[in-house]
Amino acid sequence: MSLKRYLPILDWGARYDRDTATSDLVAAVIVTIMLIPQSLAYAMLAGLPPEVGLYASIAPLILYAVFGTSRALAVGPVAVVSLMTAAAVGQVAAQGTPEYWGAAIALALMSGLMLTAMGLLRLGFMANFLSHPVISGFITASGIIIAASQLKHILGVKAGGHNLAEVLASLAQTIGDANPITAVIGVSVAAFLFWARKRLKPLLIAKGLRPRLADVIAKAGPVMAVAASTLAVWGLGLHERGVAIVGAIPSGLPPLALPSLDPALWSSLAVSALLISVVGFVESVSVAQTLAAKRRQRIVPDQELIGLGAANIGAAFTGGFPVTGGFARSVVNFDAGAETPAAGAFTAVGILLAALLLTPLLYFLPVATLAATIIVAVLSLVDLGALRRTWAYSRPDFAAQLATIALTLGFGVEAGILAGVGLSIFLHLYTSSRPHVAVLGLVPGSEHFRNIRRHDVVTAPHVLMMRIDESLYFANARFLEDHVADAVAADPALRHVVLMCSAVNEIDASALESLEAIDQRLKAAGLRLHLSEVKGPVMDRLKRTDFLDHLSGDVFLTQYDAFHALAPAIADAARRAERRDTARPPAQAAQ
Amino acid sequence: MSLKRYLPILDWGARYDRDTATSDLVAAVIVTIMLIPQSLAYAMLAGLPPEVGLYASIAPLILYAVFGTSRALAVGPVAVVSLMTAAAVGQVAAQGTPEYWGAAIALALMSGLMLTAMGLLRLGFMANFLSHPVISGFITASGIIIAASQLKHILGVKAGGHNLAEVLASLAQTIGDANPITAVIGVSVAAFLFWARKRLKPLLIAKGLRPRLADVIAKAGPVMAVAASTLAVWGLGLHERGVAIVGAIPSGLPPLALPSLDPALWSSLAVSALLISVVGFVESVSVAQTLAAKRRQRIVPDQELIGLGAANIGAAFTGGFPVTGGFARSVVNFDAGAETPAAGAFTAVGILLAALLLTPLLYFLPVATLAATIIVAVLSLVDLGALRRTWAYSRPDFAAQLATIALTLGFGVEAGILAGVGLSIFLHLYTSSRPHVAVLGLVPGSEHFRNIRRHDVVTAPHVLMMRIDESLYFANARFLEDHVADAVAADPALRHVVLMCSAVNEIDASALESLEAIDQRLKAAGLRLHLSEVKGPVMDRLKRTDFLDHLSGDVFLTQYDAFHALAPAIADAARRAERRDTARPPAQAAQ
Repeated sequence: MSLKRYLPILDWGARYDRDTATSDLVAAVIVTIMLIPQSLAYAMLAGLPPEVGLYASIAPLILYAVFGTSRALAVGPVAVVSLMTAAAVGQVAAQGTPEYWGAAIALALMSGLMLTAMGLLRLGFMANFLSHPVISGFITASGIIIAASQLKHILGVKAGGHNLAEVLASLAQTIGDANPITAVIGVSVAAFLFWARKRLKPLLIAKGLRPRLADVIAKAGPVMAVAASTLAVWGLGLHERGVAIVGAIPSGLPPLALPSLDPALWSSLAVSALLISVVGFVESVSVAQTLAAKRRQRIVPDQELIGLGAANIGAAFTGGFPVTGGFARSVVNFDAGAETPAAGAFTAVGILLAALLLTPLLYFLPVATLAATIIVAVLSLVDLGALRRTWAYSRPDFAAQLATIALTLGFGVEAGILAGVGLSIFLHLYTSSRPHVAVLGLVPGSEHFRNIRRHDVVTAPHVLMMRIDESLYFANARFLEDHVADAVAADPALRHVVLMCSAVNEIDASALESLEAIDQRLKAAGLRLHLSEVKGPVMDRLKRTDFLDHLSGDVFLTQYDAFHALAPAIADAARRAERRDTARPPAQAAQ
Repeated sequence: MSLKRYLPILDWGARYDRDTATSDLVAAVIVTIMLIPQSLAYAMLAGLPPEVGLYASIAPLILYAVFGTSRALAVGPVAVVSLMTAAAVGQVAAQGTPEYWGAAIALALMSGLMLTAMGLLRLGFMANFLSHPVISGFITASGIIIAASQLKHILGVKAGGHNLAEVLASLAQTIGDANPITAVIGVSVAAFLFWARKRLKPLLIAKGLRPRLADVIAKAGPVMAVAASTLAVWGLGLHERGVAIVGAIPSGLPPLALPSLDPALWSSLAVSALLISVVGFVESVSVAQTLAAKRRQRIVPDQELIGLGAANIGAAFTGGFPVTGGFARSVVNFDAGAETPAAGAFTAVGILLAALLLTPLLYFLPVATLAATIIVAVLSLVDLGALRRTWAYSRPDFAAQLATIALTLGFGVEAGILAGVGLSIFLHLYTSSRPHVAVLGLVPGSEHFRNIRRHDVVTAPHVLMMRIDESLYFANARFLEDHVADAVAADPALRHVVLMCSAVNEIDASALESLEAIDQRLKAAGLRLHLSEVKGPVMDRLKRTDFLDHLSGDVFLTQYDAFHALAPAIADAARRAERRDTARPPAQAAQ
C-alpha cells in the first residue's frame, strides 16, 4: 500500500497490456517528433549546447514514468524553466564554459532534491503562494522576454541584455549588422510555423486526410521546418555566407557524471533552485490535473513532487538541466492517446535513438530555425488580455499581476516572481485587515438581521449589533478594536454591543486578546459585549480559555435570541409586525 | 475641519480652562519625577550619554501635545525602543563616539519621517502585521536581554555581548572582577525598588496617609533611590573606591542641530528605523487606546502616527534619540489625572528645568542605581506565562511566539521580530490553505444541513454537498481543486457537486480560476457544479465575470433549494420526516 503510494508504476504496471502499450507507443512517436526540435531549442534558450536538450529528455522521462502519478504528463525541457535556468546560471558562470554547464547540472540536482523533499514532507501547499494572476503574469512576461531574446538569432546579430529594455536596446544597436539570409530563414520558418499551427490541420482535413493523420502532420510542423531549412543550408552552402548553424553535436549516450557539490555554488543557486522548483511544479500540476480530470482520474500532488524531483535528479546525473511537465506537449500526449506514464518512457527511447543516430543530420540546422521554433511556442504563452480580466474582477489581484509583469520585464524573472508573491500576500493581508462590517437591524416580521444601510430594519437605541464578514486574526484584530471604539464613542446611549460571528471561521490569539481588550474597555465605559452565532470549532477553542468566564455579556445561539434578550419589547413588536419588502431604494443602498 | 484632524490641539485647546490646567499640572509633576531617572537610564541603555535622555524628553513631548490624539499618553524614551536603538546604532558606530550619537539622532529622524509618512498615507494597518503573540514574545525577550545587559553595571564589571548567551558568558568570565561596593549599591537599590513598587503604597496608607499622596510617594521610589545612593557616594567618597558614577552632565538647553543626511548611513539604518517605528507605534497605540476607552474617548491611529512622527523628528533636531509612548508612564499620567496632552507639555517644562538646574546634582549618581532602575522596570515586561496561555489556545500562534523569543534571545532584536512576523504570516496562510470542509446532509424534518460525520443526516447518492469554512483565495484555491477531484474520483455514482458558500467572504481571482477549472473538469467527467448561499458582495463580483454564464450547474439561494432541485424525492421525504436529535454518539463525532 505504502510502496504503491511512492511507486505508482506498481499500480498501473500490474494491469499493463498490449492495447495500452499500442496507445502509448503511438503517443510516444508523436511526442518524440515534437520533442526533438523543442529539446534542442530550449537547451539553446538555457544557454547550453543543443545535445544537452536531448540528454534532459531521456532519463527524466523514464524516472517520471516510475514515480509520477499523471497518466498524460510529458516531462522534459520547457520554455519558462529554461529561461529561469539561464538567468540563474548566468549569474555564476559565463555561457559556453564547462562551469556554466556544470552549474546547470547542479541546479537540476538541487531542484530535484528540493522537489523530492517537498513531496516527502508534503509541502506541496507552498506552490499555493503563487497566486494564479502572479503565475499568469509571470508566464506572459517570460514569454515576451524569451521571444525578444531570440530575435538576435533570427536576425543573425550578436546582441545581449539582461532585461527587456537592454535586449531591445542592444538589438536596435546591432540591427545594422543583420545577416539578410539568416533573417529570411528565421522569418519564413516563424511564418510557416504560425501558419502550420493555425491552418495546416484544417487544410489537410479539407484535402481528405483522416483527422488523426492530419493532426500528426500538423504537429510535425517544426520537424518539417528543421528538415527544410537544414537541407537549404546544406544544399546552398549558406553557412559559408554567414548563417549560423548548430554545428557538430556529439552523438552517443548521455554522459553519466556526478554533479558538482561545491557549497559556494549551491548556496548561490539555492533561491533560484527553489523558484524553479515551485514554478515548474505549479505549471506541471495544473496541466496534469486538467488532463486527469478529463478521464475522471486523479493525481496526487505530493507524489507529483516526488516524480518531478526524481526526473530532475535523473537529469542531473545524465548531463541534463532542469525539466518539468510541459503544457503543450502534455496536451499532445493526451490527445494522441497516451494511457499510462509508459508513453513517456517510450518517448525517452525515441529521443535516445535520436541522440545516437540523428545528430550528424543536424549539423547544418540553422540556429535561426530553432529561434523561430521558440518564438512561435512562447508567444502562445503571452496573455496580456489576462490583465484586463483581472482588473475587471479584482483590483488587488490586478496590482499583483501588473507588478509581476513589470518587474519581470524590467528586473528579470527572479525579481518578478518574488515581487508578485510578496505583493499578493501583502494585499491579501491588507484586504482581510479591513473586513466588511455590517451594522444590523431586525427585518420586521422575521428573525432575520440585515445591514441597516441596505434594508428597512428595526433597531434598539441602546443595542449595537454588528456582523463581521471575516475570520478574526492578527491583521484585522486592531481594526475591530478601532471599529468598536469609534462606534461606541459616537453614541452615548449605547449599553450593549453584540458581535454576530456567523462568518468568523477562526479567532486567533491576537483576535482573542483584542476581544478581551474590547470587552474590558466596554466594561470600563459601562457597556456589555455579547457574541452570537459563534461556530462550533471557534466556540470549542474559546471554551479552552477563561475569556467566556470574564466576558461582560453573554453568548447567544442566534442573533434573534440576543436581540430579544436585550430589547424584548422592541424585538417582540418587530417580530409580530407584518413582513414587508425591506430593501431600500438603490440610492440609499449604495454601500 | 481638516486642520483639526491634523492638529488635535485646536480641538481640546479651544476648551482649555483653569480646572483642566490644574489636573494636567499635578499629573505633569508626578510624571516628571518618574521620568528624570528613567530618561537618564534609558539613554544609558541606548548607549548614549545621560543628558541625551533628558533632551529626548523635552521637544518630543511638546510636539506630541500638538499633534497627538491621546489625552493621557506620556511620550519619551522607553526600554524596548532604547534597546533596539542600541542594536541598530551599534552596527554602524562604536559606543561613546560622536558618530554613535549622530547615528542615533539620524535614526530618530528616519523613524519620525517614516511614522509621519505612514500617518499621512494611512498605513497604520502595517502595525497589524505584528501579531499579539509576536509582540508579547518580543517584549518578553527584550526585557530579559535588557535586564541581563544591566547586570554588568550592578556588578561593576566590563562585560559585553550581543545576544543573551554572549552577555551571560561574558558576565561569567568577568564576575571575578566585581566591585563589592557597586554590587551592594546595585542590589540594594533593586531590592528597594521592588519593595517600593509592591509594598510602599499600602504601607503608607496603613500609616494614615491619603491614598493620593501615598501613591505619589510610592511612584517617587526611583527618585529616592537616586538621591540616597548619590548622597552615599558623595558622603563616603565611594567613587574613589571603584564605584562607577555618571559624572559631569553638561547642563543647559538641548542642542539644536541638523541630523546627518548621509545616504550610506540612512540606507544601513533603514530597516532598523522601520522596525523601531512599527514596534514603537504598536506599544504606544495599545496603551493610548486602553486609556482612552476608560473615559469613552477615542484616539485616531493614523493621527497617532503623525503625533509620534513629530515627536521623533523633534527628538532628532534637539539631540535626542527615538521615543514613543511608554506604558507604565502613561498609566501613571492617566491615574494622576492628566486630562489633555498639555500634561505632556508641562512635563517637558519640568524636564527642561532639570536639564538646566539639576545636572550638577547628578555627578555622584552611581551607574548601578540607574541599572537597577532599568532592571526593575523591564522585569515587569517579562511574561513567560504568555507562552503557556498561547499554547493552550493556538499552536500556530505559540510557534510564532516561541520563535520570536528564541530568535530575539539568540540573534538579537531585529532577527527576532522579523522571524516572528514572517512566521505568523506564513502560519496564517498555511492554516487557511487547508480550510475545514464538511460534507453535508439534510437533518430530517428540517431545512438544515449538517456535517455527515457529526450528525445523522439524509444524503442522495448522486449529489455531493460540501461546505467550505473559509474565504477562497490563492492559498487554498488548489486545495479546493484537489479536494473536489478526490471526492469525485472516489465515487463514480456522483452526478452533482454543490458548494455551500455561506462562510465564503471572498473569492479572489485565483479561486475564481480554480472554480472555473473545477467546473470544466466536472463537466468533462459528466458532472455539474452548483453553488448555494453565495453572499451578496461575492455574488456581485461573480456577476462582473462570465463565470456564471459558463457554470455547468446553478446558483441556489439556499442549500435546501439545491437539494430539493437535485434530489426532489429524497428531499421531500426527509423534510416531512419527524425531526429527531441528529448528533451521533461522541465516538463517531470525533472529527
